[in-house]
Amino acid sequence: MNYYPASIQNVIKNISRLPGIGEKTAERLALHILKAPRIEAEHLARSIVELKDKIRLCTSCFALSDSDLCSICSDPARDKSLLCVVEQPADMVSVEKSGAFRGLYHILSGVLSPMNGVGPNDIKIRELISRLKDGRVKEIVLATGTNVEGEATASYLAQLLEKFPVKVTRIASGVPMGGDLKYVDQVTLKRAMETRHSV
Amino acid sequence: MNYYPASIQNVIKNISRLPGIGEKTAERLALHILKAPRIEAEHLARSIVELKDKIRLCTSCFALSDSDLCSICSDPARDKSLLCVVEQPADMVSVEKSGAFRGLYHILSGVLSPMNGVGPNDIKIRELISRLKDGRVKEIVLATGTNVEGEATASYLAQLLEKFPVKVTRIASGVPMGGDLKYVDQVTLKRAMETRHSV
Repeated sequence: MNYYPASIQNVIKNISRLPGIGEKTAERLALHILKAPRIEAEHLARSIVELKDKIRLCTSCFALSDSDLCSICSDPARDKSLLCVVEQPADMVSVEKSGAFRGLYHILSGVLSPMNGVGPNDIKIRELISRLKDGRVKEIVLATGTNVEGEATASYLAQLLEKFPVKVTRIASGVPMGGDLKYVDQVTLKRAMETRHSV
Repeated sequence: MNYYPASIQNVIKNISRLPGIGEKTAERLALHILKAPRIEAEHLARSIVELKDKIRLCTSCFALSDSDLCSICSDPARDKSLLCVVEQPADMVSVEKSGAFRGLYHILSGVLSPMNGVGPNDIKIRELISRLKDGRVKEIVLATGTNVEGEATASYLAQLLEKFPVKVTRIASGVPMGGDLKYVDQVTLKRAMETRHSV
């Protein structure tokens, strides 16, 4: 790396700090930026700084947003009686991409994890409960992950929500679409069998 | 992508313009930058802009440099009688990393390629010749690539340099170190056989 002039070394160092980008890739990207039009480098640099300036959390659902209320929470066409609870903003994006959900979201900003010292007060559970106060929400879809922590969080929430007049559902887990049964792991297949439904 | 607020979409778009970075990776990097400390994002952005501001070509060897003369050309410890001719700045870095060369470089900034309309006047050949005027250079090592264009450029230069009182050499090509003969392609093995040397 010290075979390059200082300003190239500097950008290589900064790029290789990004996750999944090694020094070799960082070197390639730095040399590309060097060759690319000046305007392209400036746009890249500016968008990175603007990202830190502009993005905040939606005050209602805690999604990433450019304004106080995110575009989904402020969309009059969304079904406000449906709430989908996810762990992280990226999970919300995945559900959105599926096109199968037209309600609102609630981003927990984490998952219960006693091993890492994350308890119910460290994630947005209190905020979820307070969204139920006005009685508009009729169904809560628990869409946390299907790993140990996601499952535990879903169970905890299901129990907690029992005393509220809402229907609580959990996204189905089972054999992925296009999947071949012989390649599916046994835990997934067991779950698929247990939660089978009539057709 | 349009599931994110505009400033995230913007940074994803700009990052995914970089070579070898798809939209999915760009999304992951953007979300990382969002979470990372502000100072880290600012350093990244600033180093990108500085790169375009500071880097120029060394007036002697055409390497990337922070100043008029690059650190190698201005290093009194380098052997000025030896000149290694490479295609691109990154090739120079590779030779430097090998630690096997203590002379100066000459970066052609390209390679002869009639198919792409690149002729002798389009790369730094005239500049190479003018570096031979003062008679200090005793040996020129041709270290262009071993592909068709690199080989053709090396042949062209070897012929051109015949009329100058310099020794012209070509880096060896053959079986890579640590290589198993059964995995080496036939062209490489043929070359290795033809250029065998006594031990």
